[in-house]
Amino acid sequence: MTTTPFDPAGLLPAGRVITDSGRLASFAHDEAAGAPFGLPSAVVQPRDTAEVAAVVAYCAERGVPVVARGAGTGLSGGANAVDGCVVVSFAAMDHILRIDPDERLAVVQPGVVNDWLRAACADKGLWYPPDPASAPWSTIGGNVATNAGGVCCVKYGVTRDYVLGLEAVTGRGEVVRLGRQTAKSSAGFELAGLLVGSEGTLGLVTEITLRLRGERAQEHTVVGYFDDLPSAGRAVAHVVASGVVPSALELVDRYCLRAVDEWKNMGLTDGGNVLLLARCDAPGAAGVEEADTVLACFEAAGAAWSARSGDPAEADALFAARRLVYPALERQGMVLSEDICVPRTQVPEMLARLERTAERHDVHIAGLAHAGDGNLHPMLVVPRGDERELARGREVFEEVVDQAIELGGTVTGEHGVGLLKMRGLTRELSPAVLDLHRGIKQVWDPAGILNPGKVFAA
Amino acid sequence: MTTTPFDPAGLLPAGRVITDSGRLASFAHDEAAGAPFGLPSAVVQPRDTAEVAAVVAYCAERGVPVVARGAGTGLSGGANAVDGCVVVSFAAMDHILRIDPDERLAVVQPGVVNDWLRAACADKGLWYPPDPASAPWSTIGGNVATNAGGVCCVKYGVTRDYVLGLEAVTGRGEVVRLGRQTAKSSAGFELAGLLVGSEGTLGLVTEITLRLRGERAQEHTVVGYFDDLPSAGRAVAHVVASGVVPSALELVDRYCLRAVDEWKNMGLTDGGNVLLLARCDAPGAAGVEEADTVLACFEAAGAAWSARSGDPAEADALFAARRLVYPALERQGMVLSEDICVPRTQVPEMLARLERTAERHDVHIAGLAHAGDGNLHPMLVVPRGDERELARGREVFEEVVDQAIELGGTVTGEHGVGLLKMRGLTRELSPAVLDLHRGIKQVWDPAGILNPGKVFAA
Repeated sequence: MTTTPFDPAGLLPAGRVITDSGRLASFAHDEAAGAPFGLPSAVVQPRDTAEVAAVVAYCAERGVPVVARGAGTGLSGGANAVDGCVVVSFAAMDHILRIDPDERLAVVQPGVVNDWLRAACADKGLWYPPDPASAPWSTIGGNVATNAGGVCCVKYGVTRDYVLGLEAVTGRGEVVRLGRQTAKSSAGFELAGLLVGSEGTLGLVTEITLRLRGERAQEHTVVGYFDDLPSAGRAVAHVVASGVVPSALELVDRYCLRAVDEWKNMGLTDGGNVLLLARCDAPGAAGVEEADTVLACFEAAGAAWSARSGDPAEADALFAARRLVYPALERQGMVLSEDICVPRTQVPEMLARLERTAERHDVHIAGLAHAGDGNLHPMLVVPRGDERELARGREVFEEVVDQAIELGGTVTGEHGVGLLKMRGLTRELSPAVLDLHRGIKQVWDPAGILNPGKVFAA
Repeated sequence: MTTTPFDPAGLLPAGRVITDSGRLASFAHDEAAGAPFGLPSAVVQPRDTAEVAAVVAYCAERGVPVVARGAGTGLSGGANAVDGCVVVSFAAMDHILRIDPDERLAVVQPGVVNDWLRAACADKGLWYPPDPASAPWSTIGGNVATNAGGVCCVKYGVTRDYVLGLEAVTGRGEVVRLGRQTAKSSAGFELAGLLVGSEGTLGLVTEITLRLRGERAQEHTVVGYFDDLPSAGRAVAHVVASGVVPSALELVDRYCLRAVDEWKNMGLTDGGNVLLLARCDAPGAAGVEEADTVLACFEAAGAAWSARSGDPAEADALFAARRLVYPALERQGMVLSEDICVPRTQVPEMLARLERTAERHDVHIAGLAHAGDGNLHPMLVVPRGDERELARGREVFEEVVDQAIELGGTVTGEHGVGLLKMRGLTRELSPAVLDLHRGIKQVWDPAGILNPGKVFAA
């Protein structure tokens, strides 16, 4: 690839092309701790698909890398700039184009914030389930790029499960419409699903058609405190074996609880060392039965304290506390966040291995997990600017990734590969499968300009 | 591609290589009426992945086309032989390798029959939802190839929604493992989902990991008879607008009812001209409420007669009658079966257009539909061997396909493109999207040996 200077004059109105180096820096990376990034030569803020296509075509001709960017809340470095690239920010493409209650679908631009969409759907008695912790800030385009998950995904699936159709701009600058607006289709290859989770390496998504659900039934919350991780792990295994599929099953360990307490003084650590938060939402009496079953599972695993929460406000406060874990830990230093996912029956074993790994390396690994679907977010806090500790943390997590793969797991449950999981991906996927990735990339982006150097090596 | 004579001696044990021309003929086509087919040079019946890989590698070297075959129940010609090809029959790879209640997944070979798997799951209190009408005979491998749907898909989704992971042999003869065994993953491109519905053009699937659900709640059946299609269409629209997602919503018109009556004398036509069959399965009292809502929708649309069925045996008999429609019509001649899918609010409009189209061409179009998800199976019966009527029927259905596309629909809801929907697909997808198909095909199958001439033109 030959990189020639980028002169965007005339491509978009001047106000929507940023080349000021001071401002460029704020578009250089996402929230992945310690992932490398370069400096873009320009940031463009298109308002429609035609502008996106014009930018990509211009860059394809000149061999200029193009990095798509939503809200920059990613945790893998997928939106990190490559030196000299053009960052396409979707902040100005933030319209909800349609919410159709009868077809139960929404059509949105990629810059729509997840929570805005959820609120707009709720106004019409509809529900868009994927609820990443970043939902107040992250965009649907970013969620599509990483195939984002969230708390309710244990029962309701991830972003890909809700994408019916996409409009996208390929690396040639061509606009393509993929997928469907119907309930089902067997017409050709599932290219919309292929783009979901492709992290901007195959195309830039410019419009998204999403499947919606009807309004959610009432949720019943079950809270359990446990003395240690093994007993909390047993509780998770009991719930899995019970046949109940909760609409949330979250684990928060003592390091996480303490970090939130030190910040917000919520008294979370008073209850015990490990908190399990479950929700059940089967309609009517069935939901209450489900909650009772989960409570019995907690008790059978030796919960220090457990109860069905009768107070929705209290239950919401506990889930809000769970969302505060990451920012609370960030107050202590740079947070390395893992995203392994193991088969759900392996959660107790993976928790045990995490404890042994932490001991062996003499570090604290904070434990936060979507325990019900096996997606664990172990976190390491390292002093900001301490490159040696950062490197050591990364090595600890490479071990953790190997353990997850050994248990039949995957290197990323919902954050995406970006830059941080590239090494892990080469251990999860065979060389032949990685070759298929490269071949498919070549088809969509023959000039190799779309988010180069991410996910897999060219 | 240069086609050289195929001499399979030594590749598989002699008993599992068929070259006798009399026997070969029975592997030459699926059940698609009037789709062209050739004669294979051999049929092989591998027992494991290594044998499949050996056959494909052998064929790739020699440029011999390879056509994968499940039970041959397809309705689009996707499994039809190409002259001189090797048909890989998966009949001998019919083992259920694992059913895991805690992980809620099953691992199966492609030759496992859909109903066998469903029964084996039921024995363990689990449920594999996709239920195509061919379920007593069709194989999971075939269901994966076409992304098969079925009756309960209106609520529970199609085959792709249940495929977690696949093992497949690419056109190079390489064995690849795709997807995952975990609840979720964002690790690289969604290649398992890409293979689902690719109709044997990208790879031969040799093992499938399927997501399962817990045992189904009790179903409540609502039956409605209507005087005409418009009022039945209104009933469907009312159900869609009510917010209830039924676990089945099937439409059977007078031509279909009469065909079954003439065969089985079930008295189906006594009730009225158009039958709607709905099922609701929300747990507990919520399911009864749903059924009451559906019943009210039927009544509001002017049902001639409608009721909640109190008798499960009677309800099952009506659904069994619905499954008899296709064989009943086949007794009258060759059945051309359409598979369009329109946005569900467009079902009344599509039904009206079908009636007008039938009048204009002076034909009877029999109407069978998964009405709740907009997937319509209009059918035309033509005298066997009457090429002129066959050609006329095809032209009528090309019009129908155009109408479906015009309403925002797709040319195939669940049968796949095969040979019969290739023309339609070029109208549904843009040239750029078809080019992406060709490019991706080239990556998986550089020699172009896998099911050539199907789905899209090379």
